[in-house]
Amino acid sequence: MKKVYAIGIDVGGTTTKFGLVNTDGEILIQSRISSGNHDFVEDFIDELYSKMAPMIEQVGGEENIIGIGMGAPNGNVYTGSIEYAPNLKWKGIIPMADLMSKKFGLPTKLTNDANAAAVGELLFGCAKNMKHFITITLGTGVGSGIVIDGKIVVGHDGFAGELGHTIVRPGGRMHKGTGMKGSLESYVSATGVRETAIELLTLHPDKESLLRNYKINELTSETVYECAIQGDPIANHIFEFTGQILGESLANFIMFSSPEAIVLFGGLTKAGNLLLNPTRKHMEENLLPIFKNKVKLIFSDLKESDAAILGASALVME
Amino acid sequence: MKKVYAIGIDVGGTTTKFGLVNTDGEILIQSRISSGNHDFVEDFIDELYSKMAPMIEQVGGEENIIGIGMGAPNGNVYTGSIEYAPNLKWKGIIPMADLMSKKFGLPTKLTNDANAAAVGELLFGCAKNMKHFITITLGTGVGSGIVIDGKIVVGHDGFAGELGHTIVRPGGRMHKGTGMKGSLESYVSATGVRETAIELLTLHPDKESLLRNYKINELTSETVYECAIQGDPIANHIFEFTGQILGESLANFIMFSSPEAIVLFGGLTKAGNLLLNPTRKHMEENLLPIFKNKVKLIFSDLKESDAAILGASALVME
Repeated sequence: MKKVYAIGIDVGGTTTKFGLVNTDGEILIQSRISSGNHDFVEDFIDELYSKMAPMIEQVGGEENIIGIGMGAPNGNVYTGSIEYAPNLKWKGIIPMADLMSKKFGLPTKLTNDANAAAVGELLFGCAKNMKHFITITLGTGVGSGIVIDGKIVVGHDGFAGELGHTIVRPGGRMHKGTGMKGSLESYVSATGVRETAIELLTLHPDKESLLRNYKINELTSETVYECAIQGDPIANHIFEFTGQILGESLANFIMFSSPEAIVLFGGLTKAGNLLLNPTRKHMEENLLPIFKNKVKLIFSDLKESDAAILGASALVME
Repeated sequence: MKKVYAIGIDVGGTTTKFGLVNTDGEILIQSRISSGNHDFVEDFIDELYSKMAPMIEQVGGEENIIGIGMGAPNGNVYTGSIEYAPNLKWKGIIPMADLMSKKFGLPTKLTNDANAAAVGELLFGCAKNMKHFITITLGTGVGSGIVIDGKIVVGHDGFAGELGHTIVRPGGRMHKGTGMKGSLESYVSATGVRETAIELLTLHPDKESLLRNYKINELTSETVYECAIQGDPIANHIFEFTGQILGESLANFIMFSSPEAIVLFGGLTKAGNLLLNPTRKHMEENLLPIFKNKVKLIFSDLKESDAAILGASALVME
């Protein structure tokens, strides 16, 4: 019998999502576990296995599974290792593909999580017919996947596409994870939006704002959104500022690879036009004339985790 | 008889250089004309023709010439046109490849000048065995060519690789050509170095400097270099500042495409370590750990114009 399923796994900083995917790119079953509960990666893999074994049985056992594709932060497609991922508990170089392959008895490939999402977008999402695009994931952090000539850019060492760590405000806000100042991620992630909120509320103690009704621990990109749609000026200003920083960065990225589209993913995109409008404005303002009004700025129509699961599974389906 | 020569032409903002190249990548004859003397592109092409006709005769006439390859600012490899080049006299869209082909009776291809130089580097220069690298031309302006997987990145519309126009200091120095603020070109070009010199001399009227011995029109990147090697502190500071800005930008570019090397070209590279050392320092400081101490930062061993002539000629040799 022909093997018709692949396992796609998206290892995130907080949650690991996984699913069983068929060759039509449909996720038949999916589930999740926490990424942060295991001091040792072997325990994490054991829990993954215990959750996935019943799924695999459901489709007739391992002989029907082509293999496992994984996306993970700092995942290196050349080596199959996760290397020095700042947002994961397991430090140093983790030979994830090897460990998984031994545990599951299935061929396993690994890549960067954002690259996996970009592949998902390329094969099954709104970039299906595009040869040149960039995906930006606006989640807890900022990930990116770059597609040029229909292929993911991985660079000479497998680590290309770390756009979240490019500096957009030299000397600017300190990134707690990397120690770098003024990186894109320090502003346009969910964490960054929360920090902007705290900064603005502190900077303007006299300005009324619905945001002041929340305890500091409750200030999240969601609460900022809730206040913004009620017309709160500070909350609206936060999205304008976030969009400005994002738009300026996107302009730089466009002048690098001249993509047909930028596809935005992740929690922050729930803010819709509150984020999209200032982003587009500042993107266009910072482009050379030859690039203006050419590049589509769109939200993904796939769920971020779906895109990553699909893209990861495609690693072994090809 | 087999056609064994190609014409390579490098159209620069000031000078157009051209040569007859054999299939081994040797420039047999070369010459130059001014790019700025002709209000009409047809007159420019007429002068090119009158200079090149004797060269062509020397190798036995047009039947021995494969074709003409050209590099030009804002040259579009898809259309063969120069589109809205801010540094050229001819405005709007110039169908250069068509016009040349009609005049010379030879197949003509056109690309971006910096991309042509990168191709020259890829085929005949210090990046000969590399699949991933970026060339940065530090001349009157700042050009760039990006190679990924052994291919020049041209993007969806042919205009990729305008790294000189990416913003490195938001709200910073105004670029007189584009009106944009804080672009790389406004700092790390020969023009930018001159402007930094004027700024620093104005900002510190009491500080002694050899640079004050020059009239304002004589202040160039060369005079700054002459003063720097004599130990002048302001002149040295100018190169440190220029290297800082360049290094910060290179770090961002590296986190985009993770190249094996950055190849620097152009007049400013004559400053040698005065420029290279601060550039490398700030490049490394702004990289995520996974990228540190991996990327070669080198000066091209080809002359910039040779690289562009060779790369342009390769357009029709392939």
